[in-house]
Amino acid sequence: MSKRLDGIAASNGIAIAKAYMLVDPDLSFDKQTVTDTEHEVKRLHASFDSSKKELEVIKQHAVKSLGAEEAEVFEAHITILTDPELIGGIEQKINDDHMSAESALKDVTDTYIGMFEAMTDNTYMQERAGDVRDVTKRVLSHLLGVKLPSPSLIDDQAIVVAHDLTPSDTAQLDRQFVRGFITDIGGRTSHSAIMSRTLEIPAVVGTENATSTIKDGDTIIVDGIHGKAIIKPSDSEIDEYQQMAAQFAKEQAEWGELKDSSTTSADGKHFDIAANVGTPDDLGAVLDNGGEAVGLFRSEFLYMNSAALPTEDEQFEAYKKVVAGMNGKQVVVRTMDIGGDKHLPYLPLPEEMNPFLGYRAIRISLDQQEIFRTQLRALLRASNYGKLAIMFPMIATVDEFKQARAIYDEEKQKMVNAGQPVADNIEVGMMMEIPGAVMIADKLAKYADFFSIGTNDLIQYTFAADRGNEHVSYLYQPYNPSLLRLIKRVIDTAHQEGKWAGMCGEMAGDQVAVPLLMGMGLDEFSMSATSMLQTRSLMKKLDTTKLTGLVDQALDAESNEEVIELVKKLGIK
Amino acid sequence: MSKRLDGIAASNGIAIAKAYMLVDPDLSFDKQTVTDTEHEVKRLHASFDSSKKELEVIKQHAVKSLGAEEAEVFEAHITILTDPELIGGIEQKINDDHMSAESALKDVTDTYIGMFEAMTDNTYMQERAGDVRDVTKRVLSHLLGVKLPSPSLIDDQAIVVAHDLTPSDTAQLDRQFVRGFITDIGGRTSHSAIMSRTLEIPAVVGTENATSTIKDGDTIIVDGIHGKAIIKPSDSEIDEYQQMAAQFAKEQAEWGELKDSSTTSADGKHFDIAANVGTPDDLGAVLDNGGEAVGLFRSEFLYMNSAALPTEDEQFEAYKKVVAGMNGKQVVVRTMDIGGDKHLPYLPLPEEMNPFLGYRAIRISLDQQEIFRTQLRALLRASNYGKLAIMFPMIATVDEFKQARAIYDEEKQKMVNAGQPVADNIEVGMMMEIPGAVMIADKLAKYADFFSIGTNDLIQYTFAADRGNEHVSYLYQPYNPSLLRLIKRVIDTAHQEGKWAGMCGEMAGDQVAVPLLMGMGLDEFSMSATSMLQTRSLMKKLDTTKLTGLVDQALDAESNEEVIELVKKLGIK
Repeated sequence: MSKRLDGIAASNGIAIAKAYMLVDPDLSFDKQTVTDTEHEVKRLHASFDSSKKELEVIKQHAVKSLGAEEAEVFEAHITILTDPELIGGIEQKINDDHMSAESALKDVTDTYIGMFEAMTDNTYMQERAGDVRDVTKRVLSHLLGVKLPSPSLIDDQAIVVAHDLTPSDTAQLDRQFVRGFITDIGGRTSHSAIMSRTLEIPAVVGTENATSTIKDGDTIIVDGIHGKAIIKPSDSEIDEYQQMAAQFAKEQAEWGELKDSSTTSADGKHFDIAANVGTPDDLGAVLDNGGEAVGLFRSEFLYMNSAALPTEDEQFEAYKKVVAGMNGKQVVVRTMDIGGDKHLPYLPLPEEMNPFLGYRAIRISLDQQEIFRTQLRALLRASNYGKLAIMFPMIATVDEFKQARAIYDEEKQKMVNAGQPVADNIEVGMMMEIPGAVMIADKLAKYADFFSIGTNDLIQYTFAADRGNEHVSYLYQPYNPSLLRLIKRVIDTAHQEGKWAGMCGEMAGDQVAVPLLMGMGLDEFSMSATSMLQTRSLMKKLDTTKLTGLVDQALDAESNEEVIELVKKLGIK
Repeated sequence: MSKRLDGIAASNGIAIAKAYMLVDPDLSFDKQTVTDTEHEVKRLHASFDSSKKELEVIKQHAVKSLGAEEAEVFEAHITILTDPELIGGIEQKINDDHMSAESALKDVTDTYIGMFEAMTDNTYMQERAGDVRDVTKRVLSHLLGVKLPSPSLIDDQAIVVAHDLTPSDTAQLDRQFVRGFITDIGGRTSHSAIMSRTLEIPAVVGTENATSTIKDGDTIIVDGIHGKAIIKPSDSEIDEYQQMAAQFAKEQAEWGELKDSSTTSADGKHFDIAANVGTPDDLGAVLDNGGEAVGLFRSEFLYMNSAALPTEDEQFEAYKKVVAGMNGKQVVVRTMDIGGDKHLPYLPLPEEMNPFLGYRAIRISLDQQEIFRTQLRALLRASNYGKLAIMFPMIATVDEFKQARAIYDEEKQKMVNAGQPVADNIEVGMMMEIPGAVMIADKLAKYADFFSIGTNDLIQYTFAADRGNEHVSYLYQPYNPSLLRLIKRVIDTAHQEGKWAGMCGEMAGDQVAVPLLMGMGLDEFSMSATSMLQTRSLMKKLDTTKLTGLVDQALDAESNEEVIELVKKLGIK
């Protein structure tokens, strides 16, 4: 009989394929002495050889998917496997101490790992300990005859099942083969969920026990619409889901027809639907899905895909590409948002107990001004190629915004004085993602040209709950009236000063939130490119004059669940 | 000439004494081969012996100040020093390889540390690595003839100078000798600052470079009133500060006279001044300083000073002692606030990336209900001995409060059904320390009997800045209008439902904040016992009818600094 798992719908769509378990296998073994040492040495060499071959495949794949630099780690693994001292040491243990290949391998590599880790004042060598540990796992898997899975090794239609997916895992997934994925942990804003929407792969996250319930090779249905997974489905279940998939494809086709239409509610009110974008390469999807603007361009990619701080020219080229590529539609670039969970190898940041409450984003930019000024100059130069807006992340106080804006004004004035062209219509705004900033939004609205609400961070600070922490995931409550009141405050204060308010968190494309946000008068909705047309379709059906009552009721409710019920009563499909 | 350092005034008062540098010395040495190996072995044994003797002194002291259990770590260090394998290994390196005692020691202990650290699946052994590292430092200091300072070794009048003080450092400070302290980092709510007020030792924190500026033995003036330190003061400066100290003593005497008077403003409005308390032993100071209630009894000490979860009876005895000890005055007990930076050896908590945004306080209590129910039963039993109130920490949503209260009601009903006596005047309230809760305070006020604003946490969540992180300490802005607006909201919503609002963060005893809080109508001010009389003295001078204008101006200001200026204009001393 089939079995069902409930989880969180992370990315729309239906997929049916066999499970590929991306889970570390059991690599334990019994210690035993051997008599046929020659045989053990042969086994050792064979497992080293297979590991090398496997790593070559993974490396080739990683060069393509992650870039040469990121793939170097696999080259390092191969180098370890060819180290004569390492192999010699293991052989010696087999020959002298009659250890099995497994024991000798573990014994020798543990010594290496211990030595590397003891070098506490040498981060480079400490990291080598991790490499040796990874290589040991791989060789052990060959000795024990078990599979060590890797996203690069998937070469057939599959549903990937994992405890969680790291950024490097998802980067290596080949869309040609990976039809969907299921994870134990995570929520709608976890890394894996966001990636699944970008890749347009159906996904269910937060199932809690997918990895312990599903077996490698099981047939699986991923229902990314309702957040369900069906293990070993019956024929009638497969039929049912194939129909659902067909219906979903039909809806998608209908949404596609909205590509060139404007976003107007049933009563004729216009809203902007914009896209959240990570690199200039994402522009194609924005235009294909009828984006009216880029509401969030994350400039981090420039810093993260680089071995050193990107130069002004490098940044200028990237910004120019995006600004020009949008053909006069607005592009809002967020200045560097590093820190928190994002680190740069070349920019040492302090070790912090609570990095989400630490030295990050505008706090770094105001402290290390040369980095900030270089970015602003690159942006000012790019402003000549389209319609640019700039926003500062993690503004907590009026002082911070005034400081950041003053630095911007200074750089702009310097360029004007030097006779360099600068557009005269650049808007300078800020992210609204810290409760303190929302509470003083009326004052901030006097200085900022616009606000963009970053709900992912705002929610975690409002409820004091790390959005990546599964133990407090119940506090991710985007519809809680307390959060809605903060959002309303941002929109109202912006309008009072004649400014506009947008949202660039995941919530802007959330089908329950959209009616509430329209009712509050949010001006701009910025989301994953793949959510835009579905959202436009929904917005066209809604009459904003009927939504103000809903908003009043929601703001006066007591809980997240109550608000969901209120929206459901609207009866939107 | 004398030199001055500016810092943050952490604890009132003036002290003059010689500096004791609580700073790790330079323990580096040149590697060299030796010829007289016998001499090296002798040096080795001598340094082991002196280290053992020193550790005996520290251990004895620690047993008294920290308790036998905490002192065990020093016993473990002594055991390491008597390990024949360790000494033998070092001797062998000296004899065979002609290493110096320093090199041989380092070489052998590094191997141990590496081995222990490599046992990644054995936390116990991994922690042993730290012990070996500590012992190596101590032996090295004797070999190199430099002082390895320890708070336990202070046996003369001294000003302690440190980068920061850990809880274990402060616990070992002997008040008989330590006249004051100065640290490089920390703010008014850092651990060291709170401890300095509890110990009534003048302190200046956050000076940034005290440890690099002050030399061991320098004469130092600590001015804990203005947040200054004077290094090598001139005679006239010593005179000046001795007069200031006399004036301060006079003021303290005047405040002392207010011990039995009630806290009434110049226009006759009554406020409650209450104390924040950590253990039943603190009650003496509360009554000596005229406390009208205990506004916060931190029940954590019961959990932290214990080798296992405290039983219902153990808890009952402690609560009874406090409730009875206050002679009918109210005692507000906060239920278990574990997690974040507070861990229990016997209650494993998940490893978290951002523990301040994690599984802590009421989140644990609602999840592990047996612990919570045991505590509630102990509290209910203690309610018969005085006037008890209970509050829940880290409430973020209405649902959480309702759940916690329902569990309380259930336990109470069970006891009533079983015929056990329970007081009928127990108030059940909550901490207001999460922005989301403040935003929905109007709804919470329908269920909670009172609110107590926890400003330490509320500030860090409002500005998304870890209060222990020096890199974002500029965002600790208690007077920022955005925070004041949140506080006002709590007070107003409580009053609208006929409930009372208190504050138990450090801010309640802050002389700049007090006029603002009085103007907003805060009902109860709970603070360190030693701040109570000074605050009562200030409150008696203020006319609340003249403070509402101040509050309006402050709420409409743009920054923390602007508000400080507004309060200064009042011209209170």
